[in-house]
Amino acid sequence: MTSDANQLPQPIRTDVLIVGAGPVGLFAAFEAGVIGLSCQIVDALGKIGGQCTELYPDKPIYDIPAIPACTARELVDRLMVQCKPFDVPIHLEQRVQSVEQRDDGRWIVRTDRGLVFDVAAILLAAGNGAFVPQKLALAEAVPLEGRHVHYSVPRVADFADKTVVVAGGGDSALDWALALRKVAHRVTLVHRRNGFSGADSSVAEMRRAVEAGEMDFIVGAISGLTVQDNALRSIGLRHIGGETQLEAEQLVVLYGLVADLGPIAQWNLSIHGGRVDVDTSNYESSRPGIFAVGDIANYPNKQKLILSGFHEASLALRKAYAYAFPDRKRVHVHSSYDARLAEKVAAAA
Amino acid sequence: MTSDANQLPQPIRTDVLIVGAGPVGLFAAFEAGVIGLSCQIVDALGKIGGQCTELYPDKPIYDIPAIPACTARELVDRLMVQCKPFDVPIHLEQRVQSVEQRDDGRWIVRTDRGLVFDVAAILLAAGNGAFVPQKLALAEAVPLEGRHVHYSVPRVADFADKTVVVAGGGDSALDWALALRKVAHRVTLVHRRNGFSGADSSVAEMRRAVEAGEMDFIVGAISGLTVQDNALRSIGLRHIGGETQLEAEQLVVLYGLVADLGPIAQWNLSIHGGRVDVDTSNYESSRPGIFAVGDIANYPNKQKLILSGFHEASLALRKAYAYAFPDRKRVHVHSSYDARLAEKVAAAA
Ligand SMILES: Cc1cc2nc3c(=O)[nH]c(=O)nc-3n(C[C@H](O)[C@H](O)[C@H](O)COP(=O)(O)OP(=O)(O)OC[C@H]3O[C@@H](n4cnc5c(N)ncnc54)[C@H](O)[C@@H]3O)c2cc1C
Ligand SMILES: Cc1cc2nc3c(=O)[nH]c(=O)nc-3n(C[C@H](O)[C@H](O)[C@H](O)COP(=O)(O)OP(=O)(O)OC[C@H]3O[C@@H](n4cnc5c(N)ncnc54)[C@H](O)[C@@H]3O)c2cc1C
Repeated sequence: MTSDANQLPQPIRTDVLIVGAGPVGLFAAFEAGVIGLSCQIVDALGKIGGQCTELYPDKPIYDIPAIPACTARELVDRLMVQCKPFDVPIHLEQRVQSVEQRDDGRWIVRTDRGLVFDVAAILLAAGNGAFVPQKLALAEAVPLEGRHVHYSVPRVADFADKTVVVAGGGDSALDWALALRKVAHRVTLVHRRNGFSGADSSVAEMRRAVEAGEMDFIVGAISGLTVQDNALRSIGLRHIGGETQLEAEQLVVLYGLVADLGPIAQWNLSIHGGRVDVDTSNYESSRPGIFAVGDIANYPNKQKLILSGFHEASLALRKAYAYAFPDRKRVHVHSSYDARLAEKVAAAA
Repeated sequence: MTSDANQLPQPIRTDVLIVGAGPVGLFAAFEAGVIGLSCQIVDALGKIGGQCTELYPDKPIYDIPAIPACTARELVDRLMVQCKPFDVPIHLEQRVQSVEQRDDGRWIVRTDRGLVFDVAAILLAAGNGAFVPQKLALAEAVPLEGRHVHYSVPRVADFADKTVVVAGGGDSALDWALALRKVAHRVTLVHRRNGFSGADSSVAEMRRAVEAGEMDFIVGAISGLTVQDNALRSIGLRHIGGETQLEAEQLVVLYGLVADLGPIAQWNLSIHGGRVDVDTSNYESSRPGIFAVGDIANYPNKQKLILSGFHEASLALRKAYAYAFPDRKRVHVHSSYDARLAEKVAAAA
């Protein structure tokens, strides 16, 4: 810890920290409420829904029980309505980083943006890990990150009058190349082939802008960066004709997102194949008090089905209850006979 | 086998026999279809839905994932819509009785009404067992069953001009007493207290009929039956005033249903607390090829939640696939990318 005591953030105290706002994390927030546990959710992304909203929002899902068909986005909307009665705080763009167990058994969990949680149990519903931008596989890019090499565009103004290269072939690359051309000195879009995975209308708009001389488009693969005085000077491009250098002050790489177990891999959990080993009677990991449910859970015959994550979360939370309230015995009440729940649902509707 | 060869029923051949048309059995029928297994369902009751329709059809359920609220009956309706694309035959009023494994590993399953199935695997989704009428706890009632003592009313005409006693305090008892008074010589309703669990309107109608002299109502508990020449003569009634005899030729006992594991208890399965022990990686019982899912399954920390049964069924069927198609490797396709499923859902809509 380098910060002084006055700057230490006040830990957020709650029963359970749910890592991941994918379908499983959202249902877990509801189940926690049902059995009487408080909880909060963190997700590394800027939006809820995990793979459902990130990878296939408009695809129909057919195998959620008693929902003959709904899109992935609709599923997430329904889960949000269901957990609304419990008003669960969701912290987005917060990647869970480190964990440490206190002497009294509770956990201190920190995110990359400085949130600190003090919890009785941790429910990892982290899918394949946090979605992070696919980065350039070039060592010289690392020290330039955030100054000359970017994997997102937080402020357009930073690119004013700069010579900018945008790399990628999807919607983000097309949209940002088009947007930045309005402020930059010059924008060049670089993609490894003359074909795009983005929307047809964006592709057409880009081609029109190139035609009109408002920006450039080059087919090629980035082979290296030329750096001088800690600043980017030019980009090496490999293409059919050979190798060329392209002048550039700023490089925006938009190659899409990849999932990365990331910091959780350092938590001293038993892990196989990038997933956290759990006991199927309560989906607890090798560290009692840390649970893993949904795609991140590993056990014999595990199926990456959303419905499995729902069941796993409901069992894990019943065990988590014992950590939050070691002196109370939880009594199961059917939801249909749970007057407190019925009241909350009615109030939220 | 006493019947001669010509009368042997033709076995129904299918991949999986699902025992129980409760919520879990119905979802299992859908999942079987999704992964490419044929199946048929049997249930001992005259209607689908298991506990949901039998015990709390109009109660709201709140803890089915992504369904913020629905009545138990609606849940069953939704599950029926979901499995419709696979046109699964459902055989009602068929209680599964005996099981026998053939040399080739397939199973022959027989019901109490003579259906015979030839299947690769059996999925027990039998809840707490088959619902059966709660019977009189009197030894002398047994030999009269079906002739003078009844637990249901298959044909009203059989009671024409008879002196009938109907016992019970719920809707069935009230409704049948009212219905039978129209054909019987005389109907007396007997209930242990002057209060009913049936609908208010039925209670009012009964009191009106008693007032009008169309039938009688007596508070009392049945203490014995007087039998002569193998026929019922009168019924002993214990009540506050003491003991009386009530003349009766026919006794209809409508004390409600109780669940009874029944014949399944004789299948040589490892059973604890009336539930079938399973391995949580595939919900298989101690006899490979027989699976148990939903309320009937027993494993450490088992919760009697509908959603758990859904997950259990989906895993069990993936293992059942190996029995039906030992030479094929099943490849998981997300429902959202399953073109065959999308087509079937569209066709059934
Ligand atoms: C194209 C496609 C189609 C599919 N179709 C179906 C289908 O039809 N039916 C079905 O059942 N399943 C389907 N699936 C699988 C289904 O989407 C997954 O099983 C489901 O999303 C898993 O949910 P989850 O909540 O466990 O994880 P995810 O949805 O992966 O969510 C995990 C979340 O955790 C966050 N996270 C991870 N690490 C951290 C960290 N360190 N800090 C903060 N946040 C973190 C991530 O950012 C992410 O938002 C499909 C998957 C894909 C890719
Ligand atoms: C009042 C009440 C409220 C509830 N509320 C909720 C709730 O809010 N949320 C929740 O998740 N759960 C709730 N439950 C529990 C839920 O209803 C059960 O978990 C669920 O019904 C189990 O489903 P199942 O398909 O395994 O078994 P069941 O619903 O019991 O169905 C089993 C079926 O199998 C048939 N069967 C059994 N043996 C045989 C045989 N030998 N041959 C042929 N057929 C046979 C039976 O006739 C029955 O129809 C509630 C239960 C009750 C009683």
